[in-house]
Amino acid sequence: MLSGVNLENEKSEGITVKKSENFSEWYSQVLTKSEFIDYGIVSGTVVFKPSSYFAWQKIVEFVNNEFVKDGVENVYFSMLIPESLLEREKTHFKGFNPEVAWVTEAGKSKLKERLAIRPTSETIMYASYSKWIRSWRDLPMRYNQWNNVIRWEFKNPTPLIRTREFLWNEGHTVYASKEEAENERDFVLGVYQKALAELAALKGVVGRKTENERFAGAVNSYSIELLLPDGWALQGPDFHNDGQNFSKAFDVKFLNREGKYEYAWQNTYAISTRVLGAMVAVHGDDKGLVLPPNLAYIQVVIVPIMKKGSEKAVLEFSQQIYSELRTKYRTKLDDRDYYSPGYKYNEWELKGVPIRIEIGAKEAEGRFVTAVRRDNGVKSKIEASKVKEDIGKAMEQMQKDMLERAEKLLKNNMHEVKSYEKFKEILKEKKGILVAPWCGESECELKIKEETGAKILNVPLDQTPLDDKCIYCGKKAKYVANFARSY
Amino acid sequence: MLSGVNLENEKSEGITVKKSENFSEWYSQVLTKSEFIDYGIVSGTVVFKPSSYFAWQKIVEFVNNEFVKDGVENVYFSMLIPESLLEREKTHFKGFNPEVAWVTEAGKSKLKERLAIRPTSETIMYASYSKWIRSWRDLPMRYNQWNNVIRWEFKNPTPLIRTREFLWNEGHTVYASKEEAENERDFVLGVYQKALAELAALKGVVGRKTENERFAGAVNSYSIELLLPDGWALQGPDFHNDGQNFSKAFDVKFLNREGKYEYAWQNTYAISTRVLGAMVAVHGDDKGLVLPPNLAYIQVVIVPIMKKGSEKAVLEFSQQIYSELRTKYRTKLDDRDYYSPGYKYNEWELKGVPIRIEIGAKEAEGRFVTAVRRDNGVKSKIEASKVKEDIGKAMEQMQKDMLERAEKLLKNNMHEVKSYEKFKEILKEKKGILVAPWCGESECELKIKEETGAKILNVPLDQTPLDDKCIYCGKKAKYVANFARSY
Repeated sequence: MLSGVNLENEKSEGITVKKSENFSEWYSQVLTKSEFIDYGIVSGTVVFKPSSYFAWQKIVEFVNNEFVKDGVENVYFSMLIPESLLEREKTHFKGFNPEVAWVTEAGKSKLKERLAIRPTSETIMYASYSKWIRSWRDLPMRYNQWNNVIRWEFKNPTPLIRTREFLWNEGHTVYASKEEAENERDFVLGVYQKALAELAALKGVVGRKTENERFAGAVNSYSIELLLPDGWALQGPDFHNDGQNFSKAFDVKFLNREGKYEYAWQNTYAISTRVLGAMVAVHGDDKGLVLPPNLAYIQVVIVPIMKKGSEKAVLEFSQQIYSELRTKYRTKLDDRDYYSPGYKYNEWELKGVPIRIEIGAKEAEGRFVTAVRRDNGVKSKIEASKVKEDIGKAMEQMQKDMLERAEKLLKNNMHEVKSYEKFKEILKEKKGILVAPWCGESECELKIKEETGAKILNVPLDQTPLDDKCIYCGKKAKYVANFARSY
Repeated sequence: MLSGVNLENEKSEGITVKKSENFSEWYSQVLTKSEFIDYGIVSGTVVFKPSSYFAWQKIVEFVNNEFVKDGVENVYFSMLIPESLLEREKTHFKGFNPEVAWVTEAGKSKLKERLAIRPTSETIMYASYSKWIRSWRDLPMRYNQWNNVIRWEFKNPTPLIRTREFLWNEGHTVYASKEEAENERDFVLGVYQKALAELAALKGVVGRKTENERFAGAVNSYSIELLLPDGWALQGPDFHNDGQNFSKAFDVKFLNREGKYEYAWQNTYAISTRVLGAMVAVHGDDKGLVLPPNLAYIQVVIVPIMKKGSEKAVLEFSQQIYSELRTKYRTKLDDRDYYSPGYKYNEWELKGVPIRIEIGAKEAEGRFVTAVRRDNGVKSKIEASKVKEDIGKAMEQMQKDMLERAEKLLKNNMHEVKSYEKFKEILKEKKGILVAPWCGESECELKIKEETGAKILNVPLDQTPLDDKCIYCGKKAKYVANFARSY
């Protein structure tokens, strides 16, 4: 399991441990040595360096575009929430209060009331919604914001995965009916799954959260659960039906078509920078980061191999290839004269650049390039005349292969079990996600968690009637549920 | 002058005061009644509603694109800054300390050290820069972030113009030499001026800040000063040469080509959501907001005029025009059947939509539309076959005319004066920007400010040698400076 934050700014340049041997240390090294992120000055925070920030912006762009096309509108609320407001929905407050950072002073003055830095914005937003929404004509109101939040994790901060400040979207939508509100779910989870697959090359397991694992204040929560290579699960993007819980607490009501006041139906949903952590963990290897081409800050790096006599031809040809590729791909020509080609290969591999192009005397003379894929190391010879087209194809293929690899990782580590013995055995041996029949009772869920450390990630949405028995109590199973140890 | 924050969520729908009679109340009404923003729950904060957030995102997109093309890279640092770090550059700390919001508790724990919510990020960023920068090979390092900051203004918060939380970019770049650092200025100020002109239809006055008005910690500050219709100035985007002030305080040094350690040369620069306030103030009128087409959330609204007998033809024709326009412009078909056309005209005028298209029986029959420009009310008849092209032209012209109007406002309110008497007289009569000879001494600058309330906004970069005398002390003038009362 990931833990141990290595705060030292290490000088050695390559990764010194194997992913399969010390996953936690490998993860920490790959993140910082590749310059994807750095640890922040305040413990538990990170700095997004250009490569990670770019990847996040690509996800933002994609998700935002899909949302906007569907009618979601962007807004921005202040990050400060008065304590009295945060308290108003009791379950919500109970859930978030332990990890709230409080502003108590401004300049030289003590504030009259403590202000929370948003851990999430339901309360501050719904207080305004209550003023803005008057009648059915104002609905649906589908607002979203992209921002930063703080959750003061006390145990085991893990970079990107469990950090004290992270970036995300928070969708907060309001509908006139329960049905309309519930209908939004498949659209939102669909967009998130598409972003995971097409950008981060990740595949998750979708399902409904149990009552114990629900978002604080929601009626129903749905999640996309990701699996890391160490067999631990990680909750990814999620979607919550809030029912009328918040609308009652915040007086978000509207005049319906019959002229009567009704409380509105609300949803909230989010995707966060956490998915970048999963992407690094799933796809990285012993040489460093492996970035999916669609998210890579630099997609193609050209390394000229300079030898006496051919320098001019090599550099000219490299520049020609660079001029052509850069019109279409995020390309870098690494013509630094104080590093050897070998040093450069290592550096760009560490940083996860999808395609490396090597150009030496042979290539310059033959008007072709040697392209190397970061994920599988496969080399290919590409004619200069086809370089733009073929590099595009290679990246498409790489993106596809990476997603397939992630799908395989998930599939190979999902284990159907029918008995508690087998459940414990697999959990001990290899972890992963255990797909097991469950009676639906909270008691069994909690007992299993207590005894094995595995919780129910979620319950798949499509359930076929079962003849099986709950692995814990032996009573008739109502569901098949996804269990795992989870970050 | 703008002041008085109207916290009531007013019910009356139109603007009830004239811009020329009560500018402050007009500004507050136009912002909220047009649903551009709303006041936040925490005093001194605002909510960016879809229209204002969209306008800001357009500015972000434009500026970011120019920055990235020039080699600036985006990063994201945590918003929390330990007090000990904020203190490290003394002038900087002195400048910002009075308006810092402090986090002192997390969950149930008191923090060992207070954490500032960033009022600006020099200190937290440069502490990392110090670790990252090793040699001349790492330079220039041109990092930028787009984020939210908090400055706890105690006096007179004014929405968008002086709010406790705002959105901005902060560029923080590092160079190996003073000259290179200084060279960045014209590029950055050029991008900001272009964004102001081409998007917000605003024109400002560029110049160097005096020592008294400099950014806390900078060696030289440059600003683009905007002028509001009430004759008060407003500092817009700015650029600062930090020299080696911060690099010495934060130990940002590098090994130069000669193998010696040197402190780096730094710049910082920013454009903030404040420009949206200036845009509203300059372009709005007694009917409400007037949005420049390039920033408008909705660019074109189509209002069908339904009368018995022609409903079907009118609606069909409206839908046809809508289908065509929406492929190119942000278009809305307002087919709500519970509001009259007149009500709709008022609403969209209030919201500042650049072009209104009216479609009645006459139009449907004649296959043309009536288009009305928001800024000047001019109506024109456009053939259905040319609607896409002509609406585009109309918006281009409107954007141009709005910029010209802003330029005229500025020009008409810049007064060259050679004597202190005239200076005071104009300031009393009509305010505006006073362009006056100044000896360059801080003492005169401060005396003028004390006696008239007008400070030096900035000193134009191109100065021709003067024969004039300082308006205050009568000694030989060194500069012509721009004076004004300023927000």
